[in-house]
Amino acid sequence: MKKYNIKAVDDTLLPALRNKIDGKTKPVGALGRLEQVAVQIGLIQNTLEPRLIRPHILVFAADHGIASEGVSAYPQEVTYQMVMNFLHGGAAINVFCRQHGIEWKVVDAGVDHDFPKEIDGLVHIKAGKGTANFKVEPAMSVAQAHFCIDNSANLVKEVARTGCTVIGFGDMGIGNTSSAAMLMSVLCNIPLEFCVGMGTGLDDDALQRKKEVLQEALNKHGKPNTPLKTLTTYGGFEIAQIAGSILQAAECGMIILIDGFIASSAFLVAYAIEPKVKDYCIFCHQSHEHGHQLLLQHLNAEPLVNLNMRLGEGTGAAVAYPIVQSAVNFINEMASFESAGIATKS
Amino acid sequence: MKKYNIKAVDDTLLPALRNKIDGKTKPVGALGRLEQVAVQIGLIQNTLEPRLIRPHILVFAADHGIASEGVSAYPQEVTYQMVMNFLHGGAAINVFCRQHGIEWKVVDAGVDHDFPKEIDGLVHIKAGKGTANFKVEPAMSVAQAHFCIDNSANLVKEVARTGCTVIGFGDMGIGNTSSAAMLMSVLCNIPLEFCVGMGTGLDDDALQRKKEVLQEALNKHGKPNTPLKTLTTYGGFEIAQIAGSILQAAECGMIILIDGFIASSAFLVAYAIEPKVKDYCIFCHQSHEHGHQLLLQHLNAEPLVNLNMRLGEGTGAAVAYPIVQSAVNFINEMASFESAGIATKS
Repeated sequence: MKKYNIKAVDDTLLPALRNKIDGKTKPVGALGRLEQVAVQIGLIQNTLEPRLIRPHILVFAADHGIASEGVSAYPQEVTYQMVMNFLHGGAAINVFCRQHGIEWKVVDAGVDHDFPKEIDGLVHIKAGKGTANFKVEPAMSVAQAHFCIDNSANLVKEVARTGCTVIGFGDMGIGNTSSAAMLMSVLCNIPLEFCVGMGTGLDDDALQRKKEVLQEALNKHGKPNTPLKTLTTYGGFEIAQIAGSILQAAECGMIILIDGFIASSAFLVAYAIEPKVKDYCIFCHQSHEHGHQLLLQHLNAEPLVNLNMRLGEGTGAAVAYPIVQSAVNFINEMASFESAGIATKS
Repeated sequence: MKKYNIKAVDDTLLPALRNKIDGKTKPVGALGRLEQVAVQIGLIQNTLEPRLIRPHILVFAADHGIASEGVSAYPQEVTYQMVMNFLHGGAAINVFCRQHGIEWKVVDAGVDHDFPKEIDGLVHIKAGKGTANFKVEPAMSVAQAHFCIDNSANLVKEVARTGCTVIGFGDMGIGNTSSAAMLMSVLCNIPLEFCVGMGTGLDDDALQRKKEVLQEALNKHGKPNTPLKTLTTYGGFEIAQIAGSILQAAECGMIILIDGFIASSAFLVAYAIEPKVKDYCIFCHQSHEHGHQLLLQHLNAEPLVNLNMRLGEGTGAAVAYPIVQSAVNFINEMASFESAGIATKS
């Protein structure tokens, strides 16, 4: 795995950014979170005139061996069927990307299906035909994890070369809330029971079964002592590729839109490898999936919106994106008290 | 004041709407609040294919006699200066309306300033040059309240004739959080101390002074026993016009975007006159202004976003608007399990 050269975000411009924002025709602080986002983006881009250019969302899809344990409400073939749905433009993420002018690509990170080689919009970074069942054996090899991280990083570099300055990552993979719960439990050191949720919609009995399966896996493999080992033991190919993408996007100085529970679990891996990635990330929404609220609290990360969504695909990032745009627009477009000739606070 | 003929929203289509939404390629309920908004809009428009056409935000500006008691951090002339800023396109609401393709008009509902008669984008529904100081006497006459309600209703009818199906209302008026706090206290029967906040940014001493001024006013006039008397005693011209606009927009069957604390206080007046207005309203954001959270709880209204904003102007409605669009877009554009050939829940 290559070493990432991620710069800590320089806060030299902070006073000038605050000064510009406080001079806008509004009471000091009246745009709340939008002001915080504007400051964050100004610092990442090291400018008083930040720009969001060619926003992208990459949706990584993969299958999970653990799905054979009955931890999802849906059969495994839904992963590849949903990939086809993405490619035909019929999924929620397609709708929201169209709405906001977000470009997207779908990545076969390791789906248990043979897609045609040439298929518009699909990128092949196939690490396998699904992970191994981590109740039995580690989900992936170290070589597979490296393959995922390095190749997704290359894809992000390609996207960066188009001029893109803002990027989000989505997921599709039947069974992947199980992997995410394991990563959260190990990397945040939070008991498993607080990390496991209903996923796509388990009933109470099935949720109980999921908890038992994951506890058995934890009993078997324990808590690996490095982020990479945690990833190889319990992760998914799409999660590994999102982690690699986050590392590379931070190295490229991009604004990173973090989606829901799965993307956040991938963030945990990237963050454990290089904590500086966090400066580049905007946590876009709080998922309805049990565990995500606690994960965000653990990171001291405040989500932009909380709409009780639990769909993945990058939909939380896409739906929240116009709020990020609003932050950039107000700092660039609003008049100042001075330019508008308006009296200031008495 | 005319009698409004507001239809209760018919829920005949509810099963068909739920059925359509549950057939989309996502787990049942996975789009959370977006699904609720889609259902609400489908019922208002009585269709499985709802449409948001020519969104508008009307910003009502007026001055307040109570401002002379030092209840705001800003001098009163900021009201007219901000009207000019709106007309020049430099305010936050202009930025967000441009971002989302929302048409806007500014209304002089009663600013203490003589605007030129012909000025692009400004509508004249001037009820006076600011309200009277309600610490001393009722804020407005019954005739002024009727003038506000009836004429703003006529403006909304004009907007409806353009084909507009979704409308929000903003406010500008130095001192107007004082009026809003009084309306909230009386109409929700909540003690004044829970309704009064820092407005545009009072410090602790000034906030204490504001509370004392408003308590004196409440001691003097008490709790009027009708919504109209409450409005004339403590209201503002912009608040009266937003209340009239809400009543008319509901009569026209429009989707109504409720902004923050001031718009919500106007909603309270309209709701007290005709509770059926609530079916047409989407509460867009929870203001950082003290009192708004409690007001929304009192109404059992769940805001779409909470971004710690406290600016008024309709900015909360504008920033949340793309989420409303997302709700309409997913119900119209997403593929169904059937059309996409995807396996359903096992």
